[in-house]
Amino acid sequence: MSVKEEMHIKGDELIDGLTAAELEAQHPADAAETIEGLDMSDQVKFVKQLPIKDAAESIAEMESNDQIALIQNLNRGLAARIVNQMSPDDATDLLEGLDEVLRQALLQRVPAEERAELKTLLTFGPDTAGGVMNTEVVILDQDLHVDEAITKLRQEVEDKEIPYYAYLTDAKDRLVGVVSLRELLLAKRGVRLKDLVKTQNLISVGYNIDKEEVAHHIAKYNLLALPVVDFGNRLLGVVTVDDVIDIIHEEASEDMQTMVGAGADETTDSPVIFSVKKRIPWLIINVANSAIAAYVVHLFDDTIAAMAILAALMHIVSNQAGNTGQQALAVMIRQLAMEKFDRKKAWFAVFREIKIGLINSGLISMLVLLAIIAFTGDFKLAACMGIALVIDMLVGALAGSSIPLILKEIGRDPAQASSIFLTTITDAIGFWSFLGLAGILLL
Amino acid sequence: MSVKEEMHIKGDELIDGLTAAELEAQHPADAAETIEGLDMSDQVKFVKQLPIKDAAESIAEMESNDQIALIQNLNRGLAARIVNQMSPDDATDLLEGLDEVLRQALLQRVPAEERAELKTLLTFGPDTAGGVMNTEVVILDQDLHVDEAITKLRQEVEDKEIPYYAYLTDAKDRLVGVVSLRELLLAKRGVRLKDLVKTQNLISVGYNIDKEEVAHHIAKYNLLALPVVDFGNRLLGVVTVDDVIDIIHEEASEDMQTMVGAGADETTDSPVIFSVKKRIPWLIINVANSAIAAYVVHLFDDTIAAMAILAALMHIVSNQAGNTGQQALAVMIRQLAMEKFDRKKAWFAVFREIKIGLINSGLISMLVLLAIIAFTGDFKLAACMGIALVIDMLVGALAGSSIPLILKEIGRDPAQASSIFLTTITDAIGFWSFLGLAGILLL
Repeated sequence: MSVKEEMHIKGDELIDGLTAAELEAQHPADAAETIEGLDMSDQVKFVKQLPIKDAAESIAEMESNDQIALIQNLNRGLAARIVNQMSPDDATDLLEGLDEVLRQALLQRVPAEERAELKTLLTFGPDTAGGVMNTEVVILDQDLHVDEAITKLRQEVEDKEIPYYAYLTDAKDRLVGVVSLRELLLAKRGVRLKDLVKTQNLISVGYNIDKEEVAHHIAKYNLLALPVVDFGNRLLGVVTVDDVIDIIHEEASEDMQTMVGAGADETTDSPVIFSVKKRIPWLIINVANSAIAAYVVHLFDDTIAAMAILAALMHIVSNQAGNTGQQALAVMIRQLAMEKFDRKKAWFAVFREIKIGLINSGLISMLVLLAIIAFTGDFKLAACMGIALVIDMLVGALAGSSIPLILKEIGRDPAQASSIFLTTITDAIGFWSFLGLAGILLL
Repeated sequence: MSVKEEMHIKGDELIDGLTAAELEAQHPADAAETIEGLDMSDQVKFVKQLPIKDAAESIAEMESNDQIALIQNLNRGLAARIVNQMSPDDATDLLEGLDEVLRQALLQRVPAEERAELKTLLTFGPDTAGGVMNTEVVILDQDLHVDEAITKLRQEVEDKEIPYYAYLTDAKDRLVGVVSLRELLLAKRGVRLKDLVKTQNLISVGYNIDKEEVAHHIAKYNLLALPVVDFGNRLLGVVTVDDVIDIIHEEASEDMQTMVGAGADETTDSPVIFSVKKRIPWLIINVANSAIAAYVVHLFDDTIAAMAILAALMHIVSNQAGNTGQQALAVMIRQLAMEKFDRKKAWFAVFREIKIGLINSGLISMLVLLAIIAFTGDFKLAACMGIALVIDMLVGALAGSSIPLILKEIGRDPAQASSIFLTTITDAIGFWSFLGLAGILLL
């Protein structure tokens, strides 16, 4: 009997050319992609045939939108069993995406103990350490010997996700240390855990710390997991490095997308209407902003009517300053994303951008000045362009580098619509300086 | 004697208010930040006082620019001892940043065996799996029993960075499996390693695979490390999850920064002249591009001279289409960064952006149309704006979503200068469609 035939023994109905047994044999991350590629009716058929554990693992790996759509299409009994089988952090993420009615319906069907845990997890903000932590932690008493600890681990470890660390608590459940499995494996049998631990290595975070800061900690100290504690230093859970990779990815998408007024959580899989709702408010704000710049141009209608070429050239000034500002903006937003905020360092970076802006605007305005003299022979027009370029590119460097910091200082997301605000400033100042100078020097 | 006094016994000269012993007590990541904040002469003083191991660990955590500057300022004997003490992947990264003369001088001072290893690592492309892998791997014979393996591990493990996995090879050094320390810890003593291993779990990559793809693998399968093999499936090293976090961070910075023509590897710590060199070529390309759009405007000089308000309004059209395109661009670049490239899915995403563009351009052009009628009562002018907005916003949606794919298909970085190209297109088409329509309908 071939392997293929053998696999067909169990769950041998072909769905979209695949049996449930074949799907089950895939890594959950691959199975998730396979499921995402199917029609909803086939998705439901598959999930019904998979063992609950495999279904839960695969669904946990699916993209949020697809995951929610699938759960909505399953009967509630099965959906609740799947939620119950997921690790609590994945289950919480899923439940957070569902509407209130369905969430409560599923929670009612989960056994009381797990329900209580999920409800607690749901009270943490989704963007905090508490909201992303995993509660399946190995906790050991610091007075155990290494061999007792290993025996206890062997009993417990089956259920736990990736216990590369075990955490030590004192008699009052307070976190006092951490030992890695590596240290346990290499330690002498009779040693007590408390003697293995160097407390200086213990890094933990409060449950209400922003998840991006959690990511900074794990990245900076090269940790595999970071313990999360309450105000009494009691251990609540851990954030693991694989969750941090997701946080870093999300954070990068958020910054790049909100910078231009797209949704923080949009992907190419988002429903069209979801993206429209996220983007249209910013497009409207952008219209209002470009109306301001248009109004500046309108003030110079007479100048333009007298010399129409100015309308063409003013565009080069504003565009160039906009690009200069965006370069500063991009470097600044990445700086804020990758390191803990340091006010002094951040404002020093603004100063750095102004220096770059000075050099670049000098070089570019010289180039444009020469080009205009070469093409038109008009020294005054060239001077207007040159001066306006220096002014507006410096404004761009200053605005691009300081907008994220200003947004941060007033408690907003440093990236949000920053590119839209920047362009309004560089456009308005560019038009005003160039047309103003032209009005004085040329007419 | 207080802790403070005790620490002063060793290396008690105060440098910038801190003793070498205090610095030594910091986590290497914190010590790196402390060192970066000092004047170069103080940096050199500290490094001379630190034990070589601590100096190497701290310098490995410093930012690339600072690291290189410091090494250039140390005497070559000390610099070579530090390089030799670093883990080979960190040492390779550092050596790659140095000029050829200094690199060779340091390599000459490293013992022959380590020199040979570093030279081999330097032959791998810095953006490949081979270029980022760590060669300190625990390799076990698959015929060992669990207890023999643990004994061998205890002897070896001191030198190795984070050996949460041990790799199994056959008689010909070919990679045949992986066991985690967790599995070793939990397994029965007498079991043979080969019986612990499920080969289906073995995921490895070739040494010439792009490091971003390595990051995708580790992120997708939630791995702590990924083995790197040669064409004969012999184990060369591993890429660990902490390196992957750095890769993901770098990748996000690259995309956001190159999109607008800033340098891929710029940070707020980069020297001003470094940033100028990276940005000025793209600013020049941007001038040339905006000259194209300006030329389009110039074609309509007569139209603008006859009706100067058009110069103000055309700006709203181009700006709005630019913003629409940037929203599509951002979502698309993130898609390409986060998942393995799937041509069918990618072009489907372009189709999705066109649908979003249709809805958004309809809504925005309706809004602008009504506003213009309300302010000016000029139906024809309003119609010109409305139609030009729909045309240009659709062009923006199409260009923003397809530029990264076209760049990818021709083998370029999908983000590089994409925002600059996009703006050229939306500006030129916006000016042309609006001024063209105005010439026909209004004059």
